[in-house]
Amino acid sequence: MVAVSNKSLIFKAIPETFPEASKHLIVEDRPIDLDTVHIHGGILLKVLYASFDPYMRGRMRDPSIKSYSPPMTLNEPVDSAIVGKVIRSEAPEFKVGDIVSSFYGPNAEYAVIPYQVFPRIVIRKVHNPHNLPLSYFIGYLGMPGTTVYQGLYEIAKPKTGETIFVSSAAGAVGQLVGQICKAEGLRVIGSAGSKEKVEYVKSIGFDGVFNYKEEKPGDALERLAPNGIDIYWDNVGGEHLEAALEAINKSGRIVACGSIDDYNTPFERRHGIKNYIQIIVKSVLVQGFIVDVAGRYQAMLERFTPLFASGKFRVKEDIYEGIDKAPEALVGIFRGNNFGKTILKIADR
Amino acid sequence: MVAVSNKSLIFKAIPETFPEASKHLIVEDRPIDLDTVHIHGGILLKVLYASFDPYMRGRMRDPSIKSYSPPMTLNEPVDSAIVGKVIRSEAPEFKVGDIVSSFYGPNAEYAVIPYQVFPRIVIRKVHNPHNLPLSYFIGYLGMPGTTVYQGLYEIAKPKTGETIFVSSAAGAVGQLVGQICKAEGLRVIGSAGSKEKVEYVKSIGFDGVFNYKEEKPGDALERLAPNGIDIYWDNVGGEHLEAALEAINKSGRIVACGSIDDYNTPFERRHGIKNYIQIIVKSVLVQGFIVDVAGRYQAMLERFTPLFASGKFRVKEDIYEGIDKAPEALVGIFRGNNFGKTILKIADR
Repeated sequence: MVAVSNKSLIFKAIPETFPEASKHLIVEDRPIDLDTVHIHGGILLKVLYASFDPYMRGRMRDPSIKSYSPPMTLNEPVDSAIVGKVIRSEAPEFKVGDIVSSFYGPNAEYAVIPYQVFPRIVIRKVHNPHNLPLSYFIGYLGMPGTTVYQGLYEIAKPKTGETIFVSSAAGAVGQLVGQICKAEGLRVIGSAGSKEKVEYVKSIGFDGVFNYKEEKPGDALERLAPNGIDIYWDNVGGEHLEAALEAINKSGRIVACGSIDDYNTPFERRHGIKNYIQIIVKSVLVQGFIVDVAGRYQAMLERFTPLFASGKFRVKEDIYEGIDKAPEALVGIFRGNNFGKTILKIADR
Repeated sequence: MVAVSNKSLIFKAIPETFPEASKHLIVEDRPIDLDTVHIHGGILLKVLYASFDPYMRGRMRDPSIKSYSPPMTLNEPVDSAIVGKVIRSEAPEFKVGDIVSSFYGPNAEYAVIPYQVFPRIVIRKVHNPHNLPLSYFIGYLGMPGTTVYQGLYEIAKPKTGETIFVSSAAGAVGQLVGQICKAEGLRVIGSAGSKEKVEYVKSIGFDGVFNYKEEKPGDALERLAPNGIDIYWDNVGGEHLEAALEAINKSGRIVACGSIDDYNTPFERRHGIKNYIQIIVKSVLVQGFIVDVAGRYQAMLERFTPLFASGKFRVKEDIYEGIDKAPEALVGIFRGNNFGKTILKIADR
């Protein structure tokens, strides 16, 4: 009956542009009594890993603004996908000691997941016969993995011999899109924001990669894809999108997955897309989508797990160690500082 | 063996921005000997009607620029869809006296259609049991009609109870889209560029219409579609598109049919689209398309002809009388002067 420390990542203020570690996101101790805290028929987890992803910027908003994902609550812990170990359970689905992945859970040392939220989230015991890193189950085999599955097979429909261009190719989604498309016989072009990232992306098999901080996307695509591109996997919007619309071939497909260029930029200062006409004259499909984890998670696991188990794929995680690093880890995503899937490791086991 | 007058609309110069009647498009007499002119196994038509459409701006270009439709040839007649009466035939498909619609034929008093081009165009004897105006077969039941058919049933997939917004609602495509959607139980909002057009569009059954020269599309959509729109039929791009992306509901569809705002505007001065992120967060589909007349013409005729025959639909044609009016008729499209389907009537019969 003694409260223990429970450091938590707290959403402190709504950012106007880029979130800052000391101002908008702060670690605070919110002590918890592990024996007596109400768990509302659900579970109490010791949190091992938390996933940080670009879409979280959209949740740091004025709650009066509607969007597809709920706003974060001021002075409450940030929540995101977590992996944890069950230390108390009132739910028949889980027992003490189980390793559980939960899409949506507080980013803290300990997390209560009440039973009533189970139907609204994807929460399950981690099934890990190939002994993959547990962090994969909220990353490459989590929401980003499901995003790739849904965008590739339901929108892009890649065909052998085609060329795909992937922006943010060193990011979690980009690395996976590129390697799957290589495996399916496509030519794969990518962009990344540093020399180190460009080298890495080349090393995992991309046919051509450019540093968008040193070369305009339009120039790079002329150089690397002289016969045009058939698919553009868009994680960034802005100049990349405009260049892709110029380079795209007839009946091209654009997977509108993200526009990180716009997330922290006020409307007036955004890069407006001036070549919309290309969508018409080249019969281009642009399809936006929000990942449906609940609907596609199982299918994704079945398709992607063997690829990771085979050792065929190489993926990079950017692991921040300890809850104290949480603000730095999250803001790093929007500054382009992170490299691969951003993971906060809170505890070993 | 005597040449007769054959006034023809000649493409004289490549316009940088708006084409002008005296500079880029001029009527010249190119006399023709109707008895001896080579018709290359095809037909010689006395031309009755020619269709003028917005896409023709894209053909007035430097021939080194590739696009989906062939460039016009300097000092040669402009070509477009025509209706004519066969006055000579070497083709088994047609006999003298037949009324023929031909997608692509010179805009002149007389037109030779060589047999070798037949496979590349849609050319057929007009079947007109309901005695509809012959001009319909290159207009509301021609390429624009086929455009509407393809865009609505293959992209927009309208459902009863939904709301559609149609830009250029007084144009040939807009009038038809709106009336078909009304018939299918949708709420229909439109924009037009004059008081007279707005009144007309209301009179054919649109639920709400605004004059985009007097009210910003964004303000108008808030006023006329407070619950948002489900489909945007885009004929113009620019500010209209940006407003539609704000107003569109989850899983909305945008039929990218035209962007007349951009056709005569140099790249730098175009209205850049700054709210691309809406495509992502609302899972919007944007599908560009070029009408496939050959593939959908028959299906369109079967679906739309009864609607016109029933008298249920009201459509407006803007008919210019006489080949001498050809330049004025064509440039009028890009200035927004024309009202409904632009038709050049060259002869009565």
